Amino acid sequence: MRLSHGFVPTLKETPSEAQIASHRLMLRAGLVRQTSAGIYAWLPLGLRVLRNIERIVREEQDIAGAQEILMPTIQPAELWRESGRYDDYGKEMLRIRDRHDRDMLYGPTNEEMVTDLFRQAVKSYRELPQILYHIQWKFRDEVRPRFGVMRGREFLMKDGYSFDLDQAGAVLSYRKMMLAYMRTFQRMGLKAIPMEADTGPIGGDLSHEFIILAPTGESQVYFDAAFEEMDYLSGAGGSSHEKPEDLDRFFKQMTTHYAATDEKHDAARWEQVAPTRRREGRGIEVGHIFYFGTRYTKAMNTTVTGPDGKLVHPEMGSYGIGVSRLVGAVIEAGHDDAGIIWPDSIAPYKAAIINLKIGDATCDGLCETLYAALNGNAVYDDRSDRAGAKFADADLMGHPWQVIVGPRGAAAGKVELKRRATGERSEVTPEEALARIG
Amino acid sequence: MRLSHGFVPTLKETPSEAQIASHRLMLRAGLVRQTSAGIYAWLPLGLRVLRNIERIVREEQDIAGAQEILMPTIQPAELWRESGRYDDYGKEMLRIRDRHDRDMLYGPTNEEMVTDLFRQAVKSYRELPQILYHIQWKFRDEVRPRFGVMRGREFLMKDGYSFDLDQAGAVLSYRKMMLAYMRTFQRMGLKAIPMEADTGPIGGDLSHEFIILAPTGESQVYFDAAFEEMDYLSGAGGSSHEKPEDLDRFFKQMTTHYAATDEKHDAARWEQVAPTRRREGRGIEVGHIFYFGTRYTKAMNTTVTGPDGKLVHPEMGSYGIGVSRLVGAVIEAGHDDAGIIWPDSIAPYKAAIINLKIGDATCDGLCETLYAALNGNAVYDDRSDRAGAKFADADLMGHPWQVIVGPRGAAAGKVELKRRATGERSEVTPEEALARIG
Repeated sequence: MRLSHGFVPTLKETPSEAQIASHRLMLRAGLVRQTSAGIYAWLPLGLRVLRNIERIVREEQDIAGAQEILMPTIQPAELWRESGRYDDYGKEMLRIRDRHDRDMLYGPTNEEMVTDLFRQAVKSYRELPQILYHIQWKFRDEVRPRFGVMRGREFLMKDGYSFDLDQAGAVLSYRKMMLAYMRTFQRMGLKAIPMEADTGPIGGDLSHEFIILAPTGESQVYFDAAFEEMDYLSGAGGSSHEKPEDLDRFFKQMTTHYAATDEKHDAARWEQVAPTRRREGRGIEVGHIFYFGTRYTKAMNTTVTGPDGKLVHPEMGSYGIGVSRLVGAVIEAGHDDAGIIWPDSIAPYKAAIINLKIGDATCDGLCETLYAALNGNAVYDDRSDRAGAKFADADLMGHPWQVIVGPRGAAAGKVELKRRATGERSEVTPEEALARIG
Repeated sequence: MRLSHGFVPTLKETPSEAQIASHRLMLRAGLVRQTSAGIYAWLPLGLRVLRNIERIVREEQDIAGAQEILMPTIQPAELWRESGRYDDYGKEMLRIRDRHDRDMLYGPTNEEMVTDLFRQAVKSYRELPQILYHIQWKFRDEVRPRFGVMRGREFLMKDGYSFDLDQAGAVLSYRKMMLAYMRTFQRMGLKAIPMEADTGPIGGDLSHEFIILAPTGESQVYFDAAFEEMDYLSGAGGSSHEKPEDLDRFFKQMTTHYAATDEKHDAARWEQVAPTRRREGRGIEVGHIFYFGTRYTKAMNTTVTGPDGKLVHPEMGSYGIGVSRLVGAVIEAGHDDAGIIWPDSIAPYKAAIINLKIGDATCDGLCETLYAALNGNAVYDDRSDRAGAKFADADLMGHPWQVIVGPRGAAAGKVELKRRATGERSEVTPEEALARIG
């Protein structure tokens, strides 16, 4: 993207409505604009981050054996009457009446609809387990939307649903999803910890929320240092979804070590953690998983034929990740006074190319060569602004690398390469810069 | 995808509610399920097609220099009051009141919102032209939704908007988009023809709709054979977006030759087409582009500073492609009595692997090898059904290739390879099959 024509309206001033760092930085770096209270338009840089997060979520769901579908945003009220949740849900549900006066709603979640699709399609235990997920916009009519995309009204969520023949199967699906989530967050450069949670309005027996560590997080968290050392992507540590015994070991690891938010903090258990192993910090919830058994399959009369020919209500779980919320959460976890520091895996672009002297043939030529070589993975600051403004914008937008091209260096065949996260700078040839950016 | 556990609920019976081929086949092949009148859930196979179409649309928008953003589905009524369209739009607009009694709506299109984003961000003619697009769900509360995804209420659309300093610039943007559309449809294996159209509720001076040829199309079309011969993807024929003179030549080519739907058919002009060059057929509208000048920038008080320092209202155009509608349109253009015939570029999977003897070690082994080699690009029919049922489902789902693995062939190191479109079959080694599938 050439910044001279890119739709990246950066702001020099801090918008007064933004109370937290990610909200401020998303507005200032031109990632989003609010269009109504708690509703945002995603501009090119923000959308690229959102899509990168979505891609990682999708890949890990697919690896775990979940199948992607896409349910619509508008749902019929009758499904929610069938489950009994239509009246329970209160004012957070955006209720709509269509031109034929039918009661509809903008889906805040999809347990009912996915159960309806399942009961039409699956008839036999032989087709189980099924894990279905979608990545779709949801609406919750929060009374006071705030904190930008962290607590918006229209938000992008990955919600998945598992169907198993029995409880043992459902627990296995639950563990698979837990592992998929830990891998997902690790790939985004986040340190996530699953914490036991209340089951809340979805109902059920078992529930974990996933908290990522961020200095500006909304709640205080306490955890065992063990979580700092775990690696869910390498083969070690039970990262296979395939073998029940691996999942069993993984789940033990997740649930044996102490981890709690302040709401659930248990001083007596905390005392049992060795003092050198105690960690405290701030955290942000980015995912939540539930096992709730036959709550919906019974209410919605959903059965499959079991091995003995008898009808069985499948056991369900549901699994949510806040995709748009993660954009904010990643920024809360990675920023400094100058701006955003994107992890490489989800940065909008790998690098910013900063031309310090537009119109200088050597600078322009070298920048064009670098821009072409980076093949769509760079922003090129070709605006005729001062160097200082360009440096400030590059730091604000937070691309992992900056390639600074000035007339003196360019004449000598050198550029300056800066790593955003560390501030480390080095003078290198353009070829070296490209090799390091990768 | 292994069909034994894939969420692909094919139907043997033709659903009674489906009046047209694409609707019937999308239900029968398990691509979608209706969740309310005119609202559909996309199941795994259907979603893959939708995403493939979306990808081609996106790539061609990007090549043409358009920038992707993502506007929300829910819009504030006040923007539409500002443009004067809130009352005009009638009952097709899904009107919503939120918990604070604010008037909102589910966007049927985005001229107002994109103009609002533009006026906040762009201040100078130097930043022009801008072409912004998004691919987002829309809602139009059709009084009688029908024909499946071809005329649904919640539908996926790519809508783009251009902003130029003057009319000459706007016309150039219009032509760029016209070329992008012709390339887009050609990549999907469709024969598309732009036809002059009324400007309708968006208002404006210049408008074309894009009609694809399909034997079951909704309207009769008349066109010059020249359109059968054009190629928008090769270098020839003015396929560059870069040079105004190329775009000029391309636009002349598109508008000189006769092409009209029956509504606009002009017998006198048709007589002037050489009889051997006259073509008739049925067509389906899949896209529509408009140039409407300052209609919205004036109503919404949107200006940029011109080269002379004076404020100018930018000239706009808008450009729509029905992404979910295209799934139906592609099926209308490509099917036979047995089922769907997907073009290679948008097929859900490249190939179906049909195991004729589940449990036979040689068949099973060979199928697994092929499935692994096709690396996520095949469905593997590993169900314990009769061969006839498997053949019928493979034809119904319409993957471009079928690899049929039977015990006798497998023992001799051979498989049968069938091309869905032609019915052509050949006995080949597994390696040859993989090479031809590509």
